[in-house]
Amino acid sequence: MKERFKIDKNSMILVNDNFLKLQGRYLFSEIAGKVNSFRTNNPEAKLISMGIGDVTKPLAGAVIEAMHQAVDEMATAKTFRGYGPEQGYRFLVEKIIAGDFEPRGVHLDTDEVFVSDGCKSDMGNIGGILAKDCLVAVTDPVYPVYVDTNVMDGRSGLINDEGAWSNIVYLPCTAENNFIPSLPEKPVDIIYLCFPNNPTGTTLTKNELKVWVDYALNTGALILFDAAYEAFITEKDVPHSIYEIEGAKDCAIEFRSFSKTAGFTGLRCGYTVVPKSLFAKTSTGENVSLNALWNRRQTTKFNGVSYVTQKAAEAVYSKEGRAQCSENIAGYLENASLVRQSLTSLGLDVFGGVNAPYIWFKTPGGVDSWKFFDRMLNEINVIGTPGVGFGPSGEGYIRLTAFGSREETIEAMTRFRNWVI
Amino acid sequence: MKERFKIDKNSMILVNDNFLKLQGRYLFSEIAGKVNSFRTNNPEAKLISMGIGDVTKPLAGAVIEAMHQAVDEMATAKTFRGYGPEQGYRFLVEKIIAGDFEPRGVHLDTDEVFVSDGCKSDMGNIGGILAKDCLVAVTDPVYPVYVDTNVMDGRSGLINDEGAWSNIVYLPCTAENNFIPSLPEKPVDIIYLCFPNNPTGTTLTKNELKVWVDYALNTGALILFDAAYEAFITEKDVPHSIYEIEGAKDCAIEFRSFSKTAGFTGLRCGYTVVPKSLFAKTSTGENVSLNALWNRRQTTKFNGVSYVTQKAAEAVYSKEGRAQCSENIAGYLENASLVRQSLTSLGLDVFGGVNAPYIWFKTPGGVDSWKFFDRMLNEINVIGTPGVGFGPSGEGYIRLTAFGSREETIEAMTRFRNWVI
Repeated sequence: MKERFKIDKNSMILVNDNFLKLQGRYLFSEIAGKVNSFRTNNPEAKLISMGIGDVTKPLAGAVIEAMHQAVDEMATAKTFRGYGPEQGYRFLVEKIIAGDFEPRGVHLDTDEVFVSDGCKSDMGNIGGILAKDCLVAVTDPVYPVYVDTNVMDGRSGLINDEGAWSNIVYLPCTAENNFIPSLPEKPVDIIYLCFPNNPTGTTLTKNELKVWVDYALNTGALILFDAAYEAFITEKDVPHSIYEIEGAKDCAIEFRSFSKTAGFTGLRCGYTVVPKSLFAKTSTGENVSLNALWNRRQTTKFNGVSYVTQKAAEAVYSKEGRAQCSENIAGYLENASLVRQSLTSLGLDVFGGVNAPYIWFKTPGGVDSWKFFDRMLNEINVIGTPGVGFGPSGEGYIRLTAFGSREETIEAMTRFRNWVI
Repeated sequence: MKERFKIDKNSMILVNDNFLKLQGRYLFSEIAGKVNSFRTNNPEAKLISMGIGDVTKPLAGAVIEAMHQAVDEMATAKTFRGYGPEQGYRFLVEKIIAGDFEPRGVHLDTDEVFVSDGCKSDMGNIGGILAKDCLVAVTDPVYPVYVDTNVMDGRSGLINDEGAWSNIVYLPCTAENNFIPSLPEKPVDIIYLCFPNNPTGTTLTKNELKVWVDYALNTGALILFDAAYEAFITEKDVPHSIYEIEGAKDCAIEFRSFSKTAGFTGLRCGYTVVPKSLFAKTSTGENVSLNALWNRRQTTKFNGVSYVTQKAAEAVYSKEGRAQCSENIAGYLENASLVRQSLTSLGLDVFGGVNAPYIWFKTPGGVDSWKFFDRMLNEINVIGTPGVGFGPSGEGYIRLTAFGSREETIEAMTRFRNWVI
């Protein structure tokens, strides 16, 4: 035994080395750093944030009412609720199926839906049930969590100077291909798709999504479908769920969130659909149900969502709740339309904002993303997100969100108009 | 391209094979199955559950009030809260430090405390920041989550007929060693300690815990200290936090929960302390901060706890909230004392129940755990938990919980007394 308090550094335990590849590369904290330093130097400036995709409208009345009731239930022994099912209460799961899927002709069993504390957790944890050497494909630009969590899980390889990882297959989505990704050139195992898309705000039609479902069915790949922005879809031909495409239950997991649908970013609730017809294989070639594995993961590493939050989510499906949430979304979409029109009228190339709360535009003259981000911050005091932060193909683009107040959105557009870009 | 819908099974993606080692082995669902089948066959029987460790008393008045207020804040734009810090709101973190640590002479910075949706999540996810080949030691019997999550992470090896995994070091805690684990015979990397202990209800004194801190400091091991039952400590010499032991900040992560302290099993809130002086090393021998890695994990794979829940947790530290929670815990401890005395007076060997809500007793005549569980269920309709379900050294023991109502606890003890064991 060595001297006390003198740690034997050579015998210290080892960390997951993959984490070290990530250090110092976190988009939103990089932005926050720049914004804070600007604020310090310009305390009088009236900043308008169109950067992080956080909602601003208060919760729907029906949701508030349901939460008060649920809190009261927790106040007496007779109605108090302790541990609930890790997978979510049946009352909520049934509403989800009846509200989000049945009307679109998608039939799900209650044990195919897993309620969670949000999409980010589930998308971050799903890799845990899959093999370490699966080859991952992402559309590019992309929500950083898909890539970063795969870096942590050891699937990424190394990063190059353009911010691309050697073992990740990038599927560029740019104005050049109308933001419709091409099928991968080499076989991949896991495909992340997010439509309506974050950050570009663009979508796929049913036929365009069908290409991916067919590809997955034919190659044995798994699609991880992020439908967090589903509630913003306004166009008829855009699928709300991947399960609207025939065969998708055999090849796709779908992630949903109440964050943007009902303003739950501060309440934390989402759900993940893992169909029972979805199989993968073991290293010895046997088929295994991903539904069973995810259930085992959730029951072992998670303990369910707050009863109060689940009652709040249930209220989203009431007649009143549904109407109130739709009204909020319509308000955000009006912001999006306003931004889209304003920037277009300034001669910019603008995308998204029709079926999504995100507007994606090309920087004028092909200025790089961070440079234009800095100019917006310093010259008109509007915070956006540099497109390159979402991946190499985001270079030369900026993302704006439509989640601000109407007044701030209008003011931001006025500043753009009066700005000599 | 092959025929549509005909999945090429050979190319299907691979799963994390480690999960398959676990299938069909889940303690509480095994119990639930037995209980359900008993209920079906005996619909008239009045079952008393002393099995799963779930609270039954309603939330404290101060907590209820704080939640109503927080819900109202979410109802207007001015006070609405969206995304909060992934690590938890500062208002809560400051209360945690001032309430749980300062009074015991433990000083923590706010960025050393990570608020989460519960101990189970954090204990399940912590392995993600550590190397796959770390050697794990657990006290035996043990909370199944420690072992199962390491099986999933690939650290367990294979299971033998006694339910022991080949790559996990078991540290027996039985009546023979007074439930005080011996130091491992070979060097280990990660040591799980839970005191007050689940399932045995026993504790370590400061001097006994100091042996472990010294061992970890001298060998470079990491202690994962589960203090979920801290609020039940009644004896002076029992440490509430591992950081009461000198040097622990250099070798231990501590996990806390509001589940048992304040009856939050249905609300989901806990926290994890990762001191900034805690380091591990990379495969190339450099030191790396576990605080930084856990922060990266949480900001990437987690999005914080409901604002309403965090306000509820804050209220636990108010004068009123503290008094109400203490009263609830005193009530559970009275149940524990009642069970302890009743079973002792029947001549059984009984442990725990003094600083914990768990009572651990030897089955009479050394009957095996599951056999005695079945007899209790069938003959006196009381549900316990078979000790062997917590690990090989739990064989021949039964765990009872003190979380039931006073009436049911008394009734269960009456049934024991009238039962010819």
